[in-house]
Amino acid sequence: MAPATLPEDAITIGLLGAGNVGAQVARTLVEERELISARVGTPVRLTGVAVRDPEAPRDWKIPGELITTDAEALVDEVDLVVELIGGMEPAGELIERALRRGAAVVTGNKALLASRGAELNAIAAETGAALRFEASVGGAIPILRPVEESLSGDRITKVMGIVNGTTNYILDQMDTTGAAFDDALAEAQKLGYAEADPTADVEGHDAAAKAAILGTLAFHAPFSFDEVYCEGISAVTQDDIEAAAASGYVIKLLAIAEKQADGAVLRVHPTLLPRTHPLASVRGAFNAVFVVAENAGELMFYGQGAGGLPTSSAIMGDVVSVARRLRTPVAESPGVSDAVNLAPLPIERATTQYYIDMDVADKEGVIAEIAQVLAAHRVSIESMRQPGSVTVEGEVEDSDNGAKVQIVTHLASEKDLHETVQELRDLDVVKTVNSVLRVEVEK
Amino acid sequence: MAPATLPEDAITIGLLGAGNVGAQVARTLVEERELISARVGTPVRLTGVAVRDPEAPRDWKIPGELITTDAEALVDEVDLVVELIGGMEPAGELIERALRRGAAVVTGNKALLASRGAELNAIAAETGAALRFEASVGGAIPILRPVEESLSGDRITKVMGIVNGTTNYILDQMDTTGAAFDDALAEAQKLGYAEADPTADVEGHDAAAKAAILGTLAFHAPFSFDEVYCEGISAVTQDDIEAAAASGYVIKLLAIAEKQADGAVLRVHPTLLPRTHPLASVRGAFNAVFVVAENAGELMFYGQGAGGLPTSSAIMGDVVSVARRLRTPVAESPGVSDAVNLAPLPIERATTQYYIDMDVADKEGVIAEIAQVLAAHRVSIESMRQPGSVTVEGEVEDSDNGAKVQIVTHLASEKDLHETVQELRDLDVVKTVNSVLRVEVEK
Repeated sequence: MAPATLPEDAITIGLLGAGNVGAQVARTLVEERELISARVGTPVRLTGVAVRDPEAPRDWKIPGELITTDAEALVDEVDLVVELIGGMEPAGELIERALRRGAAVVTGNKALLASRGAELNAIAAETGAALRFEASVGGAIPILRPVEESLSGDRITKVMGIVNGTTNYILDQMDTTGAAFDDALAEAQKLGYAEADPTADVEGHDAAAKAAILGTLAFHAPFSFDEVYCEGISAVTQDDIEAAAASGYVIKLLAIAEKQADGAVLRVHPTLLPRTHPLASVRGAFNAVFVVAENAGELMFYGQGAGGLPTSSAIMGDVVSVARRLRTPVAESPGVSDAVNLAPLPIERATTQYYIDMDVADKEGVIAEIAQVLAAHRVSIESMRQPGSVTVEGEVEDSDNGAKVQIVTHLASEKDLHETVQELRDLDVVKTVNSVLRVEVEK
Repeated sequence: MAPATLPEDAITIGLLGAGNVGAQVARTLVEERELISARVGTPVRLTGVAVRDPEAPRDWKIPGELITTDAEALVDEVDLVVELIGGMEPAGELIERALRRGAAVVTGNKALLASRGAELNAIAAETGAALRFEASVGGAIPILRPVEESLSGDRITKVMGIVNGTTNYILDQMDTTGAAFDDALAEAQKLGYAEADPTADVEGHDAAAKAAILGTLAFHAPFSFDEVYCEGISAVTQDDIEAAAASGYVIKLLAIAEKQADGAVLRVHPTLLPRTHPLASVRGAFNAVFVVAENAGELMFYGQGAGGLPTSSAIMGDVVSVARRLRTPVAESPGVSDAVNLAPLPIERATTQYYIDMDVADKEGVIAEIAQVLAAHRVSIESMRQPGSVTVEGEVEDSDNGAKVQIVTHLASEKDLHETVQELRDLDVVKTVNSVLRVEVEK
């Protein structure tokens, strides 16, 4: 496949690194090029992917003509560089090289940002280049942009984040299954949540880098990794977890940035949180960031904190945002892309599960009659309750009083459901249909 | 107070309406002018506030020389118009007037956006004017910008929001206190959560307007209020709530926008949600929006959905974002404002609550000795547990075995705490200090 001739104003993108996240970004830029171009408002083209080993197996097979081992040459020829190599070097020198020539940079490199963020931002400001790094904190969760833009007219006083999925999974396992730290860690490693050498996660270094980035954006002042107090979870015992639970607390590893009159304390450590706190129910490998601002009050942002696909969403959001402003005059109004033609559909096209509450005659055969009506309209039953009746399944017992039937259906269309309910109302054995409510179970 | 001479490049702002939210926006623009100007990077100045009644009482007293009753003249002379009148007219014609002359507009007017959003966006695109409306959905919660920018490289498939605090409060009261609908509504009215005429909230119209705005941004296609299926909560009975609870569900009024291959269904109705769903635990007058995207997976945004102060935070975020791009060339890198000088403080400056777990000698007077050490370092005790001991308060009982003491302190500084723990370790009656963990209770 030879690359088609580029439109003259096309925005060229070079990708550095094609690991877990990089392969997904390459896939999106190639397979979804039309969608991404429509969202940007200008044609967008991935022109090269710099890798160390062209033959390495990857999650998505990158077209051969895009692969290069000359990262510097790629950086020198594109409008926008996506850096997904990670670590300090050569990522740092490549980003600096791009910014110095005015190319936009999107990266998810938390280690680099947490130690050289102020310096790189200064270079970007000098050359007018864009530098974005939403993916560096909280994976897929939009947190840096809300903090930096949406809360730019407010004063943030405190940020508390569960920003490391590995440690959250381990603490969660210890809390819910009673596992010891070592066993929970081994389990996390088996599931791929923890690395063979888990030090960076378990000792809080990963969270500390994110605390520095969050603190910098929240307080509009530069903070670096070595200014974050850092304590990991390896000393947390099952006794601690149990004692905390007995008093209504759960133990989480939090990255905290807190403002005081003359400065800010940034810290990472195991923390007891009341079980009623919004962060307390963030389970497993999920991330969440809790923000307190003077006017906005309490906010929380929640989502998947890691993984190739979720993290690629954050990278692509930065790519589109930055690319929008590379060519076009700033259109600061939300775009309704002409490329998309999505019709409003009538409610009959909705499919959800349904809850139906009926008063029925208290005699044999009622359930069978009702089930028949549902089946005739392709509506299947997930669960059925008969409150106050002795037999939960099968027929209602004979008695003088009427009986109640409550049904939750599987997914059905509004149309089928309406026809079903209409027919149920007409049944002799159904006295009244009291309630029909929709149920959202699927995410 | 005569207004100082404006710097030549200052950005002028005109405010339309000075109600609940408007008064807070005026206060921020006047009292925090230096902060806001630093965040924008250019001097910013509120030059007028258009109101119907100059003498009306307001939450913040607006300086007399800013007040005007001539909204049109104000719109014609400023760079940025903040519209907080609400409703269709005259808000609509004033926004149109501003956009046609290329002035930026920030508004929280959900009714207007949900019915004339596409038209107003088209005018903005034509003249290159900015039009932002973060405050129109979810109050203080940054939701529109994340959806529009952070997720711009992903495909959103479903949005489900608790976007009306009044109905959420009513349903929450019915669920937790067993109140009937009418009583819960009366309580909401008494607390100021519901209007004297609660129709717009209770019948779902307010949520439907927000569904149209969310659907438009999520799916990059225009949807209007009258394309949203709408069912309110006035028919929800205590029986429904109880039956739902018995099956592990909670009933919420959700605004749902769901994509299908050829279109999207937008709907507002009472919905059964499993109690384990992240939206299920959103209580009282809080709002939350749950977003599902192909790559990002599940995300949730949570915060205060109404109120003058929280909503003013969203308005000011839009004002700063828009103003940043009015004068300066687009600096797409997160700003670290030079005006702010916030030092990183050492961990000793942190204040939190602490949990201390100790093995102590099992004899009289132990607690007194420990309490004395804490008091000497200004560390006061919130709660104390002696697991396995018969007397929970006072002295430990005599026995052959050692005893355990677990203390949660009130707020204390790291410095005081460290000194306390050091001294506790030196006490004869303290065998070992097993754990010292921090507790975050305060938000």
